[in-house]
Amino acid sequence: MFQDFKLVDDRPVAIQVKEYVKRLIIKGALQADQKLPSTREMSGLLKVSRNTIIAAYEGLEDDGYTYALPGKGSYVAQLAADSGQSVASSAWQIDWKARMNEYAGSAVELDMMKQGIRAQKGTISFTSIAPDEHLFDLGDVKRAFMDRMAIEGQVLLNYGYAKGYKPLIDYLMRYMENKGVDISGKDMLITSGFTEGFDIVLSALRPSGRRGAALCENPTHHTAIKNMKLQGFEITGIPMERDGIDVELLEAELEKKAHHFDLAYLTPSYHNPTGIVMSAAKRNAVVRLMMRYQIPVIEDGFNEELRYSGSHIAPLIATAGQGNGVIYIGSFSKVLFPGLRVGWVLADRALIDNLESIKRARTIHTSTIDQSILYQYLLNGNFDKYVKKARTEYKRKYELTKACCEAHLPEAQLSGDGGLHLFLTLPPTVDTRQLLDACTKQGVIFTPGDRFFIQEGEGTNTLRLGFSRVTAENIERGIQLIGEQVRQILKA
Amino acid sequence: MFQDFKLVDDRPVAIQVKEYVKRLIIKGALQADQKLPSTREMSGLLKVSRNTIIAAYEGLEDDGYTYALPGKGSYVAQLAADSGQSVASSAWQIDWKARMNEYAGSAVELDMMKQGIRAQKGTISFTSIAPDEHLFDLGDVKRAFMDRMAIEGQVLLNYGYAKGYKPLIDYLMRYMENKGVDISGKDMLITSGFTEGFDIVLSALRPSGRRGAALCENPTHHTAIKNMKLQGFEITGIPMERDGIDVELLEAELEKKAHHFDLAYLTPSYHNPTGIVMSAAKRNAVVRLMMRYQIPVIEDGFNEELRYSGSHIAPLIATAGQGNGVIYIGSFSKVLFPGLRVGWVLADRALIDNLESIKRARTIHTSTIDQSILYQYLLNGNFDKYVKKARTEYKRKYELTKACCEAHLPEAQLSGDGGLHLFLTLPPTVDTRQLLDACTKQGVIFTPGDRFFIQEGEGTNTLRLGFSRVTAENIERGIQLIGEQVRQILKA
Repeated sequence: MFQDFKLVDDRPVAIQVKEYVKRLIIKGALQADQKLPSTREMSGLLKVSRNTIIAAYEGLEDDGYTYALPGKGSYVAQLAADSGQSVASSAWQIDWKARMNEYAGSAVELDMMKQGIRAQKGTISFTSIAPDEHLFDLGDVKRAFMDRMAIEGQVLLNYGYAKGYKPLIDYLMRYMENKGVDISGKDMLITSGFTEGFDIVLSALRPSGRRGAALCENPTHHTAIKNMKLQGFEITGIPMERDGIDVELLEAELEKKAHHFDLAYLTPSYHNPTGIVMSAAKRNAVVRLMMRYQIPVIEDGFNEELRYSGSHIAPLIATAGQGNGVIYIGSFSKVLFPGLRVGWVLADRALIDNLESIKRARTIHTSTIDQSILYQYLLNGNFDKYVKKARTEYKRKYELTKACCEAHLPEAQLSGDGGLHLFLTLPPTVDTRQLLDACTKQGVIFTPGDRFFIQEGEGTNTLRLGFSRVTAENIERGIQLIGEQVRQILKA
Repeated sequence: MFQDFKLVDDRPVAIQVKEYVKRLIIKGALQADQKLPSTREMSGLLKVSRNTIIAAYEGLEDDGYTYALPGKGSYVAQLAADSGQSVASSAWQIDWKARMNEYAGSAVELDMMKQGIRAQKGTISFTSIAPDEHLFDLGDVKRAFMDRMAIEGQVLLNYGYAKGYKPLIDYLMRYMENKGVDISGKDMLITSGFTEGFDIVLSALRPSGRRGAALCENPTHHTAIKNMKLQGFEITGIPMERDGIDVELLEAELEKKAHHFDLAYLTPSYHNPTGIVMSAAKRNAVVRLMMRYQIPVIEDGFNEELRYSGSHIAPLIATAGQGNGVIYIGSFSKVLFPGLRVGWVLADRALIDNLESIKRARTIHTSTIDQSILYQYLLNGNFDKYVKKARTEYKRKYELTKACCEAHLPEAQLSGDGGLHLFLTLPPTVDTRQLLDACTKQGVIFTPGDRFFIQEGEGTNTLRLGFSRVTAENIERGIQLIGEQVRQILKA
């Protein structure tokens, strides 16, 4: 015995000894009332200092795994659950897949991460629209954390509030006011990213006793489609034009069955996946229509900060002025750090009051560490500095990607006014799933566009190119390869 | 103009100037194509350096709020949403409370935080069972963060995995194995605390098309009752005995309508609110029963680490051996830092696969910063050190609280073998809501016990005393005051 003890680096040795002995006890290799080797013997057996063994033995006694007889040594305690070993049985086999309800089943079925192609090493991947981590200013993040811990570390580590970390809420309210939002009568809930905010809002607005009905742009963010489906909404998609949603078709749809729609989900800026920014005129028209039909709008503030050119455009919630019909969901995940799970819902105060209780029932509150790092980072003025750097870098890639598409994919119609991706529409005969298969063999992958469309069979000739994490060299080479495969398909 | 500019501390001045001017533009105080004062003039007006003004003006131009005419100066840009100002309307008033569905309504109704009494300053409060933040070892937490950031800061700040941070999962799998759990065929999902784990499991096991049926100890954790109700479960409570759930009544209930129960929710160690630890014999009996009736058990690992005396007791998931019927939900929130929102679900691999997709649909993933701090903190061996200190401190308070109750509340039956609270059962004539009213006037508050019971009207003579955040002096004084009020009521 004690031959198989192996030390690992970077972990206190006493803890490793303690856990090693604990495992022997639990496995039954050391039996109840058996005497452990003396600390001196054990020190020789495991080749660690005697003081370390003494600390480990104390820990074992503290945890109730051993007891000490004064002057005699340490003995293995009788484990209270010993009598239970016999229950251990493989008879209790529940068929979990069979027990899963519709919601759990759909969650797997609609989980793109479980269906995505795994990129082989060396593959050029245009599938990600996550930020490039090489741009992260780690020093500023560390400083934000240390600053905040010094000010109120004890507060950060104890329970926070479901609504969110107060200094961050105050900061973001002002931030939204600076975008032209009339914040009177409104309030804010901090969530663990956009997705939690969206899911909570849907769960509150889903009608009882019947399926919900939602309007949205078509195509749209696939995670949003997933969440609306999971919450039982029937989705009506309105086609996109170059300057945003087709307002005439929207109006026609509303006239047809206005009373049916429980909500609309819209992404006016850098719409995912098309990258289109809705024009100011359309923003006004959309707000007027939704007001006329009294349909709540969930506005996705996605990437609003990644504007490379053109003048400032106010979000729909600003356009709505004192109206309370827009629920704005924001997040810095795409533009800043996705690892920090922080988003916010800005909406009418009465609604936020309900959402706050749902948030509490689901996750108590969002990580206070994440919230406080973000707050201090913003307060320190790091955000402006970072966005400036990120914009320069992404703009360069955006322009390169665009130029490469124009050169190597002249068959494609491009869209995308900013953000971290471009959206391509190829001739109708090109099936982008088939194209993807061909490209994968050539070592380049992208996201087929059909998954962003509401109905099956739509957008089969579209694809999304995320360029944020691809090098300039690979952008050029990857798009050239895609172009070659497109022409192969067009020839056939 | 520019008279109302006020500097705040601790924020870069250029950012403050930029935001100040931005607000003037958004409010319309500065109009489109109006010339801004020169940087020299503005420097005089705002009393900040000219370089700062130059930086601020650059920021405004970057964000599209101004444009520069070479050699002439900076001008206010035409805001694209200007044309929308007229939409601003109070006509779009949605009655949000009326739009809320049953789920959202119940979430508010069952939200104890919205009904709790607000303690006045100076009140002795026994309502909290959160840890005492004065015990937190902030230096170790900071070190854990800095260690981890140095190793893989860029990875921590970008997207993580829905399942969780791999090093933490590996660590916790081993941690659970060290508690005697057979981990073969099992897997783990990291969640944002116990509550998210519990809510996700419930949402997967809630039957489609009918109300679910759940078994639990009575009384039990009120948040668990809330979540089961919100997910539409009918709850059957089984009374508690001194050594845990009444197994005979449990068996009788199962025999009566076994096929009805979709799951059982149990807290075998330091049960909330009674503080009772289920005996080893009962653990075996419960596992055998659940196995016989093939009922999934959700085990709440609440405070398992806060054992003050007695020998080690293995969790139910260890007792079940190779059986796959127990879903263990753990968290260090109560014993370590509630502000770090990290919990874990350990269960059959097939089940975890479904839960992972639900987790992804709800919150993408748990904060990687929180997970990595926790991981590094554990790896550095800080947990053992901290638990030792916390146990000593809480044990002292536990014994003091117990002694004070015996001295000043001889009418009460006590329960609680550890943890951060004691549970008191008073003579049936004492209504603890009425007692609370009387005590509040005397400056001491506690949690009335009825909220932990399944049916209305049960446990009206019980209360929970959380002592973790009360000073020794206030424990003594507070319990004395409660005793006096009890005797007033008994006299009447």
